[in-house]
Amino acid sequence: MSVTAPLGFTAAGVTAGLKPSGTKDLALVVNEGPSTAVAAVYTSNRCKANPVIWSEQVSATGHARAVVLNSGGANCYTGDFGFATTQLTAEETATLLTDAGTPTSADEILICSTGLIGVGGEEFRSGILDHLPELVAAAEDSVTGGENAAEAIMTTDTVAKTATRDGEGYTIGGMAKGAGMLAPGLATMLVVITTDAPLDQPVLDAALRKATHSTFDRLDTDGCMSTNDTVILMSSGAADTSVDSTEFEHLLGELCHDLMRQLHIDAEGAHHDIAITTRGAASEDDALTVSRSVGRSNLFKAAIFGEDPNWGRVVAQVGTTSAEFDPTTIDVTINGVEVCRASGPFADPAEVVFGREVDVVIDLHAGDATATVWTSDLTHDYVEENSAYST
Amino acid sequence: MSVTAPLGFTAAGVTAGLKPSGTKDLALVVNEGPSTAVAAVYTSNRCKANPVIWSEQVSATGHARAVVLNSGGANCYTGDFGFATTQLTAEETATLLTDAGTPTSADEILICSTGLIGVGGEEFRSGILDHLPELVAAAEDSVTGGENAAEAIMTTDTVAKTATRDGEGYTIGGMAKGAGMLAPGLATMLVVITTDAPLDQPVLDAALRKATHSTFDRLDTDGCMSTNDTVILMSSGAADTSVDSTEFEHLLGELCHDLMRQLHIDAEGAHHDIAITTRGAASEDDALTVSRSVGRSNLFKAAIFGEDPNWGRVVAQVGTTSAEFDPTTIDVTINGVEVCRASGPFADPAEVVFGREVDVVIDLHAGDATATVWTSDLTHDYVEENSAYST
Repeated sequence: MSVTAPLGFTAAGVTAGLKPSGTKDLALVVNEGPSTAVAAVYTSNRCKANPVIWSEQVSATGHARAVVLNSGGANCYTGDFGFATTQLTAEETATLLTDAGTPTSADEILICSTGLIGVGGEEFRSGILDHLPELVAAAEDSVTGGENAAEAIMTTDTVAKTATRDGEGYTIGGMAKGAGMLAPGLATMLVVITTDAPLDQPVLDAALRKATHSTFDRLDTDGCMSTNDTVILMSSGAADTSVDSTEFEHLLGELCHDLMRQLHIDAEGAHHDIAITTRGAASEDDALTVSRSVGRSNLFKAAIFGEDPNWGRVVAQVGTTSAEFDPTTIDVTINGVEVCRASGPFADPAEVVFGREVDVVIDLHAGDATATVWTSDLTHDYVEENSAYST
Repeated sequence: MSVTAPLGFTAAGVTAGLKPSGTKDLALVVNEGPSTAVAAVYTSNRCKANPVIWSEQVSATGHARAVVLNSGGANCYTGDFGFATTQLTAEETATLLTDAGTPTSADEILICSTGLIGVGGEEFRSGILDHLPELVAAAEDSVTGGENAAEAIMTTDTVAKTATRDGEGYTIGGMAKGAGMLAPGLATMLVVITTDAPLDQPVLDAALRKATHSTFDRLDTDGCMSTNDTVILMSSGAADTSVDSTEFEHLLGELCHDLMRQLHIDAEGAHHDIAITTRGAASEDDALTVSRSVGRSNLFKAAIFGEDPNWGRVVAQVGTTSAEFDPTTIDVTINGVEVCRASGPFADPAEVVFGREVDVVIDLHAGDATATVWTSDLTHDYVEENSAYST
C-alpha cells in the first residue's frame, strides 16, 4: 500500500522515458487533505540539486499539496535551464491538479529528482512535462498507485521499498529509494512518508527530525553524500481521531527504521550488512563519530567482505577520531566474539562465525552513551556497479 | 644505494622469520657520526603502536644512533608484552653496537614495525631478538646493506623504494615502505632518510616537517591511517662542507616527493594513479580539504577505475566540505578536458582520454591557493588484496 495506505492520499507512477530501461520513472503523491501540513529534511551537501533548492522553499511554508518525483536524472548542476525545468514541472502539475478539481498553486508542489548529476537537458524536461497529464490522471484512480510510485523512483535499487504502520485510528505509509551514495547529511535518500494523523506541522516536523536522526542519518553504506537527498512527511489529517504524539513519534521511528533497513540490505554490491555499535562513549556524538569512522574504513569493509574479523582495522580507525577514550582500554566484539579486550588480542578470531549480518560492538569504557551506524562491506560488486554506472 | 649513499651510514637487512614468505624482514640503519642528529614525524593516530610510543621518546632528545625496523608484525595493540619487546630490542641493539665499537645506549635506538595489528607475541619477540647479532654484524660490512634494508621493510609492496639526491658536497638517501593504509597523519608510512650534511637538529626538523607536509601528507590512497607511520631523518654530519639550508630543503623535498610517488604508483590494487589539484581556493587548507575529500570518495574512485570522467561525483564531494566557494561557479577538468564549467556540463566527457595517470583539476574561483592530493582508483584488486590480507 505504501504512501496510499493513509486516508486522503493518491499516487501514481508512469513511464516518461527518462530511464533507458523503459521502466517507470515518474511518480506523484497527492495529499487531498483536509490538511496539507508537511515537514521535510534535505541533504546537507552544499552542492544541491535544483529540485532540492526548489523544495526547500516550498516546505518552508509548512504546506504542500503534492510531490512529483523522477528517476533517470538528478537535475543537479544543470544550470538555469535545470531550475526552470523544476519550476515548470511544479506549475504544470498545479494547473493539472486544479483542472481536476483540487485548487493548487505551484508553490505547493514539492519536486524530487534522482539519477546522474548533470542530466537535466531538453529531453529530460520534455520527458517529464509531456507525461504529467498521464501522471495526474493515473493518480485520480489509484488502487495500485502507491506501488507504482515506489517503483518509479528506483535507480539502482533491486526492489521497491515501502512500509506502513497502524496507530490508534490512523496510519503511516512510506516509500523510499536509494542503493548507493548513502551517507547522511540530515536525510540520505528520497523518502516520502504520508499519514492521515491530524497533527500540526510543528509536531510533524519535530517527529520527522527525531526519526531521521536515529535512522536514515545513521545509514552510511559508502560514505558518499548525495546532492538530492530528501525525506518528506505529509499529513492529510483525514483520520477522525485524536493522536497521541508520543505513539506517533514511536511509530514514525519504526517506519523510518524499517525503510532504512530496506535501503541497507539493498545497498549496491553489498554482501554483508554491517551494524557498528559504539558503547561506553562519553557522549552520543562520540559514539556516533566512532561508529561512523569505522564504517567508512575501506580496509575494514574489505576485511568483512573476506569474512576476516580484523579488529586491528577497527582500532586503527577509532584512533583517527577525537572521541574521548583511553587507547589502552578498548574492547572490540565481532558477532559476539570479543576478539580484542583492553586494546589487545583476546578471543581467537577463528571463533567468529559470519553470516549476511555482521555485528561489531566497540566499547570505549569512557561513559554510558551508545550509537549504531549501519554500513556495507566493500565488494567486487560495489566496484563493478560503480565503475560502470554512467557508461 | 638507498640510506647508505651518504657518508657515515651502514645498513643491513636479514631474514628473521617474521614473514611467512621467508623473505627479509628485519632491517638496521646505523649512523656512525660524527653527528647523531635526528628529526622524526609520526602518525597522528591516537591508537599508536608500541614502537611509535618508544621512538617518540627517543627522537624527542634530538639524537639517535640507529633505527631497527621490522616487517611481519606491527607490534600494535599487543599490550605490555609488546612494549617490552620494543624496549628489549633497543637494549640488545645498543649492547651489540657497543660491543662492536660504537658506544650506544638504548635510548638512542629508534624502532619501527609494520605488518598486522595485534601481532607481537613470543614468536615475534624471539624472531627479532635472536637475529639482532646477525643483523648488527651484517651492517658492519655493508656494500649492499642499503638495498637489503629497503627490501626487509616491504609488506604488500611489490618493489623496494629508494631514492638519493646529491647536494653541494653532500648526499641525501632514503628508503620507504607502504602500499596500503596510506593516509596522512603527519607521516604516512615507514621512511628512513639519511644525510651526511652537517646540519643542526632544528634545521633538520624544520626541513623534514616542511618536506613531509607537501609530499607524504598529501598521499591518500585509501583514506586509512596507520598506527605505525614514521618518517625519520638522520644526519651523520660526515660531509666536510658548508650546507646551504635552502638547497637542502629543496633537495629533501624532491627526495620525499620521489619516494611518495614510488609509494603512490605501488599502492595496493591501483590501476590508475590520480592527482587531484584544487586551485582558485581561498586558502591552502581549503584546497587541501577539497582535494582530499574528492580523493576519498569511493564513487569517484570506482568511476576512475571504469575510466568514466564522472564530474558529478567530483562536485558532489566538493559540496560536503566547508571550504569557501560558490556552488554555481565550480569548474572540473579531467585529463585536460573541461567537462564541467560554472557547475554545469561543458566539454563532452567522451573527449577524455585515460591512461595510468589521471589528472583532475578543480577550480573553486574563490582565491589563489592550490594543493594537490595523490590517490588511487578503487579496483577489484584493492578489494581482493584487502579482503584476504590476514587470512
